[in-house]
This record gives sequence, structure tokens and C-alpha cells, in this order.
Amino acid sequence: MAITYRKAGVDIDAGDELVERIKPLARATRIAEVLEDVGGFAGMCRLPSGLEDPVLVSGTDGVGTKLKVAFMTGVHDTIGFDLVGMCVNDVITCGARPLFFLDYFGTGKLDVAVGEAVVRGIANACKEVGCALLGGETAELPGMYAHGEYDLAGFAVGVVSRKNIIDGKRVAAGDVALGIASSGLHSNGYSLARHVLLETMHLGPDDAPVGLAGATVAQALLRPTRLYARHVAALTQDGTIDVRAMSHITGGGLPGNLPRVLPDGLGVQIEGTWPRPPIFQLIAEGGPVEEKEMRRTFNLGIGFVVIVPPEHAARAIEVLRAQGEEPYTLGHVVPVDPETPFEDRVVWPGA
Amino acid sequence: MAITYRKAGVDIDAGDELVERIKPLARATRIAEVLEDVGGFAGMCRLPSGLEDPVLVSGTDGVGTKLKVAFMTGVHDTIGFDLVGMCVNDVITCGARPLFFLDYFGTGKLDVAVGEAVVRGIANACKEVGCALLGGETAELPGMYAHGEYDLAGFAVGVVSRKNIIDGKRVAAGDVALGIASSGLHSNGYSLARHVLLETMHLGPDDAPVGLAGATVAQALLRPTRLYARHVAALTQDGTIDVRAMSHITGGGLPGNLPRVLPDGLGVQIEGTWPRPPIFQLIAEGGPVEEKEMRRTFNLGIGFVVIVPPEHAARAIEVLRAQGEEPYTLGHVVPVDPETPFEDRVVWPGA
Repeated sequence: MAITYRKAGVDIDAGDELVERIKPLARATRIAEVLEDVGGFAGMCRLPSGLEDPVLVSGTDGVGTKLKVAFMTGVHDTIGFDLVGMCVNDVITCGARPLFFLDYFGTGKLDVAVGEAVVRGIANACKEVGCALLGGETAELPGMYAHGEYDLAGFAVGVVSRKNIIDGKRVAAGDVALGIASSGLHSNGYSLARHVLLETMHLGPDDAPVGLAGATVAQALLRPTRLYARHVAALTQDGTIDVRAMSHITGGGLPGNLPRVLPDGLGVQIEGTWPRPPIFQLIAEGGPVEEKEMRRTFNLGIGFVVIVPPEHAARAIEVLRAQGEEPYTLGHVVPVDPETPFEDRVVWPGA
Repeated sequence: MAITYRKAGVDIDAGDELVERIKPLARATRIAEVLEDVGGFAGMCRLPSGLEDPVLVSGTDGVGTKLKVAFMTGVHDTIGFDLVGMCVNDVITCGARPLFFLDYFGTGKLDVAVGEAVVRGIANACKEVGCALLGGETAELPGMYAHGEYDLAGFAVGVVSRKNIIDGKRVAAGDVALGIASSGLHSNGYSLARHVLLETMHLGPDDAPVGLAGATVAQALLRPTRLYARHVAALTQDGTIDVRAMSHITGGGLPGNLPRVLPDGLGVQIEGTWPRPPIFQLIAEGGPVEEKEMRRTFNLGIGFVVIVPPEHAARAIEVLRAQGEEPYTLGHVVPVDPETPFEDRVVWPGA
């Protein structure tokens, strides 16, 4: 009997079916710059007009083992939202406007409904940040993934005029660090979170422990990553605020991410307080996980940080409030010994 | 005992070590447009000067189950080369110049040496096509991949002046299709190829069957995807050749890829012959796999197709010969019934 590609484990028709279902989702994310009906092999996008010496800003990321929560719960329509958040929140830290996004979806045997749900989440987030879902790859890799599992990679491109790049170089002692709330874990620290909640505490996805204030474990773990593009756009387009640095708080928490945009010899002294989403307390107590480890693993309630000179802090807060946001004053930029280890440049009270 | 992120399966130090090893590899791919020392969160790249109405061209791809051959043989330093080939060969089909590349590497437990080898292959290919390795993500996903396995996704961005976009729209009956040789399977059809060679024929990676003309199964299966960027650059920069369409021959073979760049109502009549790398004959006989299935699964020796008007064919062949290439005249563009199924628009002799 002759062998065909399908018998070897690859279902071309399922792939075609998914492509058909994705088309309207991608079309809904279209922005004016996208060139349609050209390019059989690649997506095409013009540059927005009015940019002076345009610089392309690009980042790639995945969603880590938050995927395992999607597999466990069968909820697949928000993990793509997380994927966009992880990539686009990085790209906007330099002041770039998100332009387009591509995704890679790798699985053992394609489930068209799951693939469509994942892409719907991606498209929803793309719409929210105003970037086009320009392309993607669905790869069926028989024997590479466990049944019902998949991996996701995202790729975002944004653009900024060179003179408007925000790179942290002008950050100075005395500047104010404003924090914008996260929605929970976002997409980091899931190996530890799952270990503590599911293995150490033996919680199930439908359990609603008192510590989660009414939410189930599944709900708390699946809560989508927040998108900060509109906050960045509002701050940079205000025209009166000297935004000196922005940081996306991902794996590594504040100590792992804030110093990435600070000049040598500067740190941030944490002075303020902010509410922690309840899942963090549950993990800290359930592990137990020490406060230092919590800080360097999770965002602990702050998803994005903006650094401005003190005289602009009030206006920045006003602009963020107009976005429906209540920013937290985390603290101030302070001089630190140039030999200070990276993570210790975020100085916590009592340290 | 308190729990840390590392105990939950994520080794931050291994990730840092890999980042250090990647730095010089990425640096070696630097092009003049890359902005260094800016952007803690994302890679930055200017546009090449002299472009009129620049259009960004972007594609993403993986390498399919060619990965399994890397796992089986322990040879990890060419699979990244394939990854770049799959993405960049797509992006250049519209005449774009490759600009930058990003990769996603997902694995269960990071092996720093393997990760470095993979990125070395990526960097080698980036250098060859003149695009910058601008960023990447290494994701450690405990429990998601079998021991020693990983998945790879690549993202390429190129740029072309809008007026120079090659989109197939001007292809006309009588145009000539020129084929440029592949090196073998490239990165498509591996589920079928592995099934036939390893399972049906019970060949091992070190076997050297007569049909492979001296190569081992591992060598034949690992042969890197060819890169066609310099061919495209030579053809489009010649200034005298009206390149009307280009097609990257991947999964689906000639019938699945050539019609992607042909206007409705046109097909390609195959008239010429070209040498098939010996691995294809081995698979066809070993399966057995019927000729029709071979054609719609594998590139069968042609990795890239260029369509030019007949009066430009001689010069196009000359330019490709100057690149050390011996192109094959596959056949001519012919009218076909507009209702012809997609794949039947490539018309084979005797059909």
C-alpha cells in the first residue's frame, strides 16, 4: 500500500480549515498600513506616515507554562491574548507604536477548534493594541507534543521615530517610578505557581480557596495579561511629560526588570505600597515561598513601570487616571554603588 | 522548606549562561541598520536608506519534524540554518531584502550547549543572507517537551520599496519558469520521509544505502535548507530583468507553491527535467510513495522558482550562473480553466 503524507501523521485538510477560520479573525485586526492581496508568502505592512527616521522595534516571547493551565482547563481563548501582551508590552517600553504581530502555533495533532480559539485570543489583543495580525504558522509535529498540548511563540514589530526612542539614558536620581497594576500573574512564574497551588496545596482548578476572594484557581491562573499600549500612547502623546524609561514587569519581577532600563549607578528605592492580587499571598503562604523569591519571580501586582522626572509625576498620574487607571508611586530613583548586583538595584524598605 | 523557582524546574542561571554565549553570535550578524545599546526589552533596527515608500515584509515558520533528525543524531548546529532558510526564503519572494530575524527556542530543560549550537546555525544563516539576528526567546517549559527535545520558531522581517514589490500580478502566458536547485528535503515532508526511511525501511542514521550515493541517512536528512537571498538580490539588482513572480518551494511542492503567485486562470506547464537529489528516489521506492504524492509533498530538487518574460530568460540564467548556479527551465506559464483546482495548475507532462 502506498504511503501518503496524511498517513505519516500530517493532516493538510485540518490545516486548511484552520486557515479559513483564521482569515476573518486576522481581517478584523487590519490597520490602514497593511497591504492586502499581495504576497502569497509573507505579510506586508507599510510604515505609518509622519515618522522621522523610523526605527523598527521587535520582540519575541512565549507564555511559558501558563499553557499548562489552558490544557488543564480546556480554556484556550485567552492564552493568545497573553501571548500578544508578553510581546507587545516589551516593544512599547521604548515608546514604539505596535504595528504588526505574527504567531507560531506548534502541536502534535491539530485540533481546529483549539487552534481557532487560540488565534481568537491573539486577534482580540491585537485589536485592543491596534496592531495587525499579519501572519502565522501552524505546525503539526506528530510525536513532538503530548495529546492536546501545544506551544506558542509570538513576534511583534512596532515603530518609533528615532528622536522619540525612550531608552532610560536620561533617568536621573530623584525621578519618580510610577507603577501600573497587573491583573495577577500575567504570564510569568507559572512553573512555581502551579507547583505550589496544584502539587503542594493539592488544589484543583475548580477549587475556590478563601484566599482567592471568590475566584476559582482556574480563573485566577488564567486571568489574561494586561495590555499597556494605550497607557504608553497616552503618556507619550500628551506632549508635556518627559517619559524617561518604561519597564515591562515579567519573569524576574521588579528587581529583574526595572534595572534593565536604568543607567549604571542608579537604582529605585521602593517607598510606596500597592495592593497585591490575592493569588500572590496564596502562593507565598502555600509554598511557603520567601518574600525575596516572590519578588524576583512574580510581578506582585505591578505590570508596567514608568519613570518620569518629579515635576512631571502629577501630570503623568492625571493622564493615567484619564485612562481609568490608578497608578502607584513605587518610589524614587536613587544613586547606588556601581558594583551593586543587578537585582539589588531595586532597594526594598528595611533593606 | 521554602520553594524556589529553580526547584519548580526553571533554571535561571542556565538561561543567563546561554544569553552570554549567544551575544557574540548575534553580534557577528550585525548590519549597519541595527541600533545597539538601546532597548532593554526589544531589538531595534533602522530602515536601509534610499527606500521609497518602504514596505515591511514578514514571515514566520518552523522546521517541522526535521527537528526529530537533530534529536536522533545529536547534530544541532544546522537546524537553525534551516529555520532561517524557511523564513527568509519566504520573505524574499516579493523582492524584499532581509533585514532582521528573531527566534523562539522552547524546551523542557535547557541544555546550554544544545541551545548554543542551535543559535550558531541561526547566526550562520543570518550572516549569509545579510540579516541581523535581532533577538530571541529561550523558554524553559518543564514537562512540555520530552527529554532532549525542543521546538523552534523563526520570524523574519524584510523591506522593499512599494514600487518594487514582486507579486505575480503581471505574470502572463508564455512567461518562463526557472527553477533553482534545492539541496534535498530542505525542511519539509519529514514526517513522511522519516516514516518511510526509519520505520518502513528500518534504516538507521548511520546506514549508507546505495540509493544515497555515499551519504548516510543522517547526512541526507540533515542537509541544510539552501538560502536564495543572493540569487534574488542578483536578479532584482541587475536592472534589466522583469522578475514577475518568485516562489519558495516548501510543503506542498511545486503544485502547492507555484500557484500561490500566479494570477487566476494561469498555470505552469512542466516541460523541462532536472536532477532529483537521490533521497527522493529512495523515499519513493521505499514507501512506496506514488509520484503524485511525492510531487505534492516534496520539493523534488527545486527549491525556488523565478518567473520572467521569455525575452528576459537568457539574461536571468546568465545572472544565476554568475552566482555559481545552474538554473533549470521548468516550463512555461499557460492559460488554464479558471475552475482548475489549485494544485492542478501545475501541469505535468503526460497529464
